[in-house]
Amino acid sequence: MKKYTELSKNELEELYIPLKEKYENYCKSGLKLDISRGKPNADQLDVSQAILSTPMSREDCFSASGVDLRNYGILDGIPEMKKLFSELYGIKEEYILVGGNSSLQLMYDSIARAMIFGVRGSERPWCFEPERKWICVTPGYDRHFRITETFGFKLISVPMTEDGPDMDAVEELVKDPTVKGIWCVPKYSNPTGNTYSDETVRRLASMKCAAPDFRIMWDNAYAVHDLGENGDELLDIFAEAEKCGNVDRVFYFSSTSKITFPGGGVALMAVSPDNKKQIMPHLGAQTIGYDKINQLRHVNYFKNADAVHAHMMQLAKLIGKKFEICLDALSELDGLGIAKWTKPNGGYFISLDVEVGSAKSVFELMKGAGVTLTDVGATFPYGIDPDDKNLRLAPTYPTDDELRLATEILVTVLKYVAVKTLLEKA
Amino acid sequence: MKKYTELSKNELEELYIPLKEKYENYCKSGLKLDISRGKPNADQLDVSQAILSTPMSREDCFSASGVDLRNYGILDGIPEMKKLFSELYGIKEEYILVGGNSSLQLMYDSIARAMIFGVRGSERPWCFEPERKWICVTPGYDRHFRITETFGFKLISVPMTEDGPDMDAVEELVKDPTVKGIWCVPKYSNPTGNTYSDETVRRLASMKCAAPDFRIMWDNAYAVHDLGENGDELLDIFAEAEKCGNVDRVFYFSSTSKITFPGGGVALMAVSPDNKKQIMPHLGAQTIGYDKINQLRHVNYFKNADAVHAHMMQLAKLIGKKFEICLDALSELDGLGIAKWTKPNGGYFISLDVEVGSAKSVFELMKGAGVTLTDVGATFPYGIDPDDKNLRLAPTYPTDDELRLATEILVTVLKYVAVKTLLEKA
Repeated sequence: MKKYTELSKNELEELYIPLKEKYENYCKSGLKLDISRGKPNADQLDVSQAILSTPMSREDCFSASGVDLRNYGILDGIPEMKKLFSELYGIKEEYILVGGNSSLQLMYDSIARAMIFGVRGSERPWCFEPERKWICVTPGYDRHFRITETFGFKLISVPMTEDGPDMDAVEELVKDPTVKGIWCVPKYSNPTGNTYSDETVRRLASMKCAAPDFRIMWDNAYAVHDLGENGDELLDIFAEAEKCGNVDRVFYFSSTSKITFPGGGVALMAVSPDNKKQIMPHLGAQTIGYDKINQLRHVNYFKNADAVHAHMMQLAKLIGKKFEICLDALSELDGLGIAKWTKPNGGYFISLDVEVGSAKSVFELMKGAGVTLTDVGATFPYGIDPDDKNLRLAPTYPTDDELRLATEILVTVLKYVAVKTLLEKA
Repeated sequence: MKKYTELSKNELEELYIPLKEKYENYCKSGLKLDISRGKPNADQLDVSQAILSTPMSREDCFSASGVDLRNYGILDGIPEMKKLFSELYGIKEEYILVGGNSSLQLMYDSIARAMIFGVRGSERPWCFEPERKWICVTPGYDRHFRITETFGFKLISVPMTEDGPDMDAVEELVKDPTVKGIWCVPKYSNPTGNTYSDETVRRLASMKCAAPDFRIMWDNAYAVHDLGENGDELLDIFAEAEKCGNVDRVFYFSSTSKITFPGGGVALMAVSPDNKKQIMPHLGAQTIGYDKINQLRHVNYFKNADAVHAHMMQLAKLIGKKFEICLDALSELDGLGIAKWTKPNGGYFISLDVEVGSAKSVFELMKGAGVTLTDVGATFPYGIDPDDKNLRLAPTYPTDDELRLATEILVTVLKYVAVKTLLEKA
């Protein structure tokens, strides 16, 4: 297969006419497909239905130690849930704080608390810092960026590589004391699907930060979300940070949102005992406790980490199929030199880079054909992709057939845009 | 019955010996009873068990409009839950925001947001106000006071009357622009059990506040918690505030914590459409949404407000019995002039005033006899009752037999302390 850039004007024109025709036919067919957000498909949710369809008797509602979990009490999570999370994520139980239905909320609340009260090591509450900056690894997760934008941080982009954030850039930035933290999705990063290398984790854990209250927001959302038996391995950041005396630097988050039910699962925050000591009194002012019954419902269903892994392998079959459909379609572009995309071993996304300056055109043409992609720029601070080249594909939500059609259209649009652009330049 | 103050020294001494003996016998009996917190008893929770023991099938998880509620989405609550809350509380659906498992968290988050961003009408975020004060109706709810204390407000006490807060005092205080708000439990107030009169509600809604961003935190926690058929009536504060153009002043809260499960129910916030417009973008940064499955679980069980009221009558039978036990025991003090207590038509508490300067002694003696009361001062800002006279009784948590014994001991201790004090003065 010849690269498009190596084609003559005549060859390009020959390609152009049928592509245009094909595209226009899609437009006429009145489709409505959505591959914009990382939502599970209903088939996936059905795998967890037993969590909801299993009746909870009175007896089921008591903890092993005899506590009636239908009543008030227990601020940082029921011991059974802590144990399960500890097994699953390899985090010490005393680090764990079990939250409500949303890890995003735990992240937002952590920064809101820092704004009003500061964190361990803060010289003052962050709202009184005349200037504050935050590192955003790009492409990245829009909802992370939005939190720090909301709280008035200047968002600084650092490029994502196959090994995680460009650590030279990060180490340079943290010499600035107004840089207060970094957002990380260390495993199957949203949207590239790459996992941070051991060296990246070590450098994040050990780097010298000018801000005494620098925080790594470690959103390990896809910790157990492998697509096959041989998933990526992520180094234990707590162990690395402990070695360097930097354990307070890490705010660790995850949830069962994409294990069981998005918005109906159980979230997790994990921090050093000293951080926990600082956080708990504030948490105790905020709430009497999170929903323990839902914690119990999850524990009663899974019982142990092995069961969660087995459950995830069931989901992997469904999700893996969708990644396959997507990657199969994209493979038609192999060798054309018009796009690059990631082939993750897990997570929820494929990151697709097109020619600089053409992502928005692709988005608009897809829209014209009835397919919604994630907004261009959503994976960048302030919603602006400076190169206008990154697209995030979220294959999980549509049915297999819908996805097949959507990616077939995508491939056509990508070729069409590439040929058109080259012709305009020719 | 003669008042204790009218007794001669001899008469007092005659009372003293057997009271002391009786008290010391209690101390020896190794009891461990707790009437300190407003927690439901397990019998009460059993009434709601069917909410948990009813299996939720796949079909049960779809909304009337066909939305899969097991998935992400719907930030301000499912329409079905809004409708139920609207019926139950008499609030327009468009005012309602359905929260997670905790109304306290909605209150804390509301003030946290005000600290960082301000509210409608704020000249600046509250954290930048050089001075900020908050009105606390006393005796009142410790967790309310703790929130505003945490956020650095100076807490100003205003006495609770049978008709609600002393409105002359409130109207005077709100002339100060640094006074930013007031905590209210308007129906079956914690701990007095009194309900705000129509005039009080009208004055709160219409009063002139120097702060353009003054807020009434209206925690209607016991809105449907009558002990009998003829419960107290509370005026609609939204309607009153609307009449005076002050509707933005009201932040309304409630939850099903004491309808179904404490910490496992569904919380509610209600605000004017303009306030909602200001809040929603922040909420959208904080979370993708609250737990819709638990909302659905509650809606599927109750279906409508009438069913909730019928359910509350079942609880009222259990709780009413406990109030009766408590009030029966206290009636032994009628006419002795040593204590005053409230006789609420609903809610969770009885407020007991003893002689100035003796509440702590009562608390300590009760502790000696193995009965835990709510900490003296808990019902006041900073945990200090300036008169050392108020005790909060929480009858719901112990069994009937435990409560009978605890209040029998209480009556003995109250007499004992009163006689002892009078003898020391004599």
